[in-house]
Amino acid sequence: MTIIAKVEAVLIADDPATFVTREIDGVELCFGGMEGDRHFGLFAKADSRQPMYKRGTEIMNRRQLSIVSVEELQRIAERLGVEIIRPEWLGANILVSGVPHLTRLPMGIRMMLSSGGGLICEGENEPCAGPGKVIANHYGDRTLTQLFIKQAQKSRGIVAYIERPGELKPGDFMEIHH
Amino acid sequence: MTIIAKVEAVLIADDPATFVTREIDGVELCFGGMEGDRHFGLFAKADSRQPMYKRGTEIMNRRQLSIVSVEELQRIAERLGVEIIRPEWLGANILVSGVPHLTRLPMGIRMMLSSGGGLICEGENEPCAGPGKVIANHYGDRTLTQLFIKQAQKSRGIVAYIERPGELKPGDFMEIHH
Repeated sequence: MTIIAKVEAVLIADDPATFVTREIDGVELCFGGMEGDRHFGLFAKADSRQPMYKRGTEIMNRRQLSIVSVEELQRIAERLGVEIIRPEWLGANILVSGVPHLTRLPMGIRMMLSSGGGLICEGENEPCAGPGKVIANHYGDRTLTQLFIKQAQKSRGIVAYIERPGELKPGDFMEIHH
Repeated sequence: MTIIAKVEAVLIADDPATFVTREIDGVELCFGGMEGDRHFGLFAKADSRQPMYKRGTEIMNRRQLSIVSVEELQRIAERLGVEIIRPEWLGANILVSGVPHLTRLPMGIRMMLSSGGGLICEGENEPCAGPGKVIANHYGDRTLTQLFIKQAQKSRGIVAYIERPGELKPGDFMEIHH
């Protein structure tokens, strides 16, 4: 089955002080991800998401990019009772539309870019407190931090890595081979 | 669910003339796989297994290692009506036992080595003519080439890449987190 996703926004976390991303006009994706982004690199240090490895151990970086969907962000916003959840607040690098249940896409599947590049889905990006705090700050409601962690389960999007480099810009399409 | 696999043999394809592997005492797995093996490398050239990319394009190497199981090789042998199928003939790098339906392990799951290293399963290694020809030559029966391609479906093992380097030797155990 092939799903066609539309790229609504491309974003980067290039301020070392925060994981929050900002929209950009487009990017040349490289092996390792987005140059200048805080998750860029072929390798990464193991952290709390890889408890089977000693913290700080060098491992392959399977979490180069974070992808979220318009539909799922809207669903999270509804569950939290807020108007909007912005992809920036979640540190997302790509905002797509048109993918039913993006977060449920299985690990290992390929997402082809219009430019000929390719991404590999590495599965659900489990919600953590960071984005929850940003949301709580924005709406001035501290209860939203924990609520986000709970309500964003299975809706917070996926992580991916670059299999083949290529350009990516808003308006592009991604072919997801499921 | 955790499955414990036993490493029965470690093998390398270090003769440039053939994909057939030979048993070795053990290996220090690196990022990229087994140094000296024909599939070693963080990157690889796209071939017939990645038809979405132009042949020869540089892509991430998700097929660093090939893993087969004693039980599935025995099943293929029975289906072909031959005594034995050796892991060497399939170009396998690791022979394991104790994994029910190894070939059905989904992409993306982690296999932890006793040494602390880790592999990521990249799914079924689809049977092709190469190993079929080796088997046909060994048994002096040319019909076995095509028969292998058909009968080895879902039993020919998986491919994997190294997430974290580590030693691997016969007698080790691999913890498969399913």
